Amino acid sequence: MSAQLSSWNAGAAKSAITDFVARVTQEGGPDFVRPAERVAVFDNDGTLWCEQPYQVQVFFLIDRVKELAAKDPSLREKQPFKAILDHDAGALHALGKQGLMELAFATHAGMSVEAFDAVARAWFAQAVHPRFNRRFTRCVYQPQLDLLEYLRAHGFKTFIVSGGGLDVIRAFAEDAYSIPPEQVIGSSVKYTFQLSGTGATLMKAAELDSFDDREAKPANIGLHIGRRPILACGNSDGDLAMMRYSLTGTGARLALLVHHDDGEREVVYDRDFRLSPLAEALDKAGEYGITVVSMKRDWATVFPET
Amino acid sequence: MSAQLSSWNAGAAKSAITDFVARVTQEGGPDFVRPAERVAVFDNDGTLWCEQPYQVQVFFLIDRVKELAAKDPSLREKQPFKAILDHDAGALHALGKQGLMELAFATHAGMSVEAFDAVARAWFAQAVHPRFNRRFTRCVYQPQLDLLEYLRAHGFKTFIVSGGGLDVIRAFAEDAYSIPPEQVIGSSVKYTFQLSGTGATLMKAAELDSFDDREAKPANIGLHIGRRPILACGNSDGDLAMMRYSLTGTGARLALLVHHDDGEREVVYDRDFRLSPLAEALDKAGEYGITVVSMKRDWATVFPET
Repeated sequence: MSAQLSSWNAGAAKSAITDFVARVTQEGGPDFVRPAERVAVFDNDGTLWCEQPYQVQVFFLIDRVKELAAKDPSLREKQPFKAILDHDAGALHALGKQGLMELAFATHAGMSVEAFDAVARAWFAQAVHPRFNRRFTRCVYQPQLDLLEYLRAHGFKTFIVSGGGLDVIRAFAEDAYSIPPEQVIGSSVKYTFQLSGTGATLMKAAELDSFDDREAKPANIGLHIGRRPILACGNSDGDLAMMRYSLTGTGARLALLVHHDDGEREVVYDRDFRLSPLAEALDKAGEYGITVVSMKRDWATVFPET
Repeated sequence: MSAQLSSWNAGAAKSAITDFVARVTQEGGPDFVRPAERVAVFDNDGTLWCEQPYQVQVFFLIDRVKELAAKDPSLREKQPFKAILDHDAGALHALGKQGLMELAFATHAGMSVEAFDAVARAWFAQAVHPRFNRRFTRCVYQPQLDLLEYLRAHGFKTFIVSGGGLDVIRAFAEDAYSIPPEQVIGSSVKYTFQLSGTGATLMKAAELDSFDDREAKPANIGLHIGRRPILACGNSDGDLAMMRYSLTGTGARLALLVHHDDGEREVVYDRDFRLSPLAEALDKAGEYGITVVSMKRDWATVFPET
C-alpha cells in the first residue's frame, strides 16, 4: 500500500484509524462496508488547514474590502468595513462566523461563478499567512493530507463539509486536497441563471442559501451525498452534529476530533475561540464515542514542506 | 473498448456522440478535456426512463394515497386525494408537475430519510407499469444505459439532474443506472436533524427546498457539482436551461434532446404533454446547437430485455 500515515505518531488515534479501516475493508468480515458506502466527511477550517488567528476566508475578505475601499474611500469610515480594514480582532470576533461569511458573500454578490473563481484563484496564488510566512494553501496539515490519501487508497470517497464559502473552497481544494468541486459542501449563496446574447451564466446572488454549520452539516450531507458517512472528522462544536450523525449509523463508525494543543508548531485553543469554539465535543468525546486527536502528541509534523 | 453504443442505430445522433467523445478524450488534441472535467448531466423522467402516462413518481403517489385512505377513509372524498384515487387524468394534469411533487412530499413529511428509502425500495421491488407490464425500474431506456456506460468508460462522471424527488431517484438509480446517490440532483424537501436518546436522524420536513426544473437545474448544478457540464441530455423544455448552460461554456460541448416520436414501441408526445411539455427546445434546437435524438430512428431498441 503506497499511502501511509507516515506523519502520524504511533498511538491511540493512529490505531483507531488503521483498525477502523482494516475492519471496514476486510471482505467477508463482520464490519465490511462496500466501497460505494465508504463515505468520509471532513470539516475544513481548523481540521484540514489552519484557522488562526481567523479563518483564511477572513483574510480574503480583508483584501476584498481593501479593493472596494480603494474605489470608494468612504467605506474606510463605515462599519463593519472600518473594523475589517483595521484588523480589529474584537470587532471581527463580535461579527461571528456567520456574520463574517455573510459580509464576504455581500462583497461578491452579482459576480458570475466563473469570474469569482478566477478572483479566488488569483488571491490564493499570492496570499501569505502572516505568522507562518507561507501561502495559505500550504497551511494545510500534512497528517490530514496523509489521512485523505490513505482513505482514498482504501476505497473511500472523501468530502469536505465546511462552514466556509463553497466557491472559495472549490477554488483550491482540488489542488490542495485532491478533492473535486462536486465533493465540496459549504456555506452558499443562491445562484441565479442568466441568459444573454452570448451565453448562459450562473450569478452569485446576495441571498444566503445555507450557512453550513452545526445541524446544517448533516442536513447538507443528506442533500448532497445521500448516505450517512462512516467517518467524520472535525475540530469544533460546529462539527458535532455531523459527527454524531455519522457515529449513530449501524456498523463500524469513526469520528475524529482534532484538538489544537500545540503552541509551538501551531496555536493552542479550544473553548475560547469565539469564531468557532470547541467545548461540548471535547467534554463529551468519551460519552459520544469520539476519538480525540492531539496535534501535539499524534502528529509527527504539522505543515508540509513548502 | 467494452462499452459500445450497440442499441443506437447509425446516424447523425450516434455520430454526434462518438465524434464528441473522440474529440474531448484525444490527448494533445485541441478539444481535449481532462477526466475531472468530463461532467455529463441527464434529466431522468422521459430521458432515462418512461414518463407516460405520468411520471413514475405519480404512480408511487397514487399507491401512497391508497395506503393513507385505507387508514383514513374520509380522504376518499377530499381533493386532491379523490382525483388521485380515481386516476382522474384531467385533475392530475391540472395539478401540474410541481403540484404533484409537493403533494408527494406532503405524504412523506415527518419520515426519516432512511425509513423513506426503505418504503421507496419496497415499492420499486413490486410495482409494475400498467401498459408495458414490467417493473418501473425496467422501463429504463436501453440506449441510455449504453450511453451512460459508454461515457463512464471514457472517463466521464455521470449525474442525474431531475425534477423528480431526490430521495425517490436515489432509491433506484444505483441499481438501474450505476449512478450513486451523491451524483443525483433532484427536487428536495428540507431535512431537519433530530437527536434522540438512541441516535441522530435526518427527517423529511414538509417544506420544499428546491423544485429542480427549468432555471433551477443549472443553479443546482452550480450548488452540487460546481463545474459547467460538457454534455447535457434532456427531453423537455424543463431541461433547456441546463442544456444552454452546458452548451455555452468554452470548448467542445454536446446537448442531446430525446424526442418521443415512436408510438409503436413507446408513446408519441411533445408539446401537448401538460406535465412536462417540449416546444421551445424542439423548435429552436438548430439555433441553440442541440442534437435531436429520434427515438424511432436512432434507437435500435427501447427497453432492456426483462
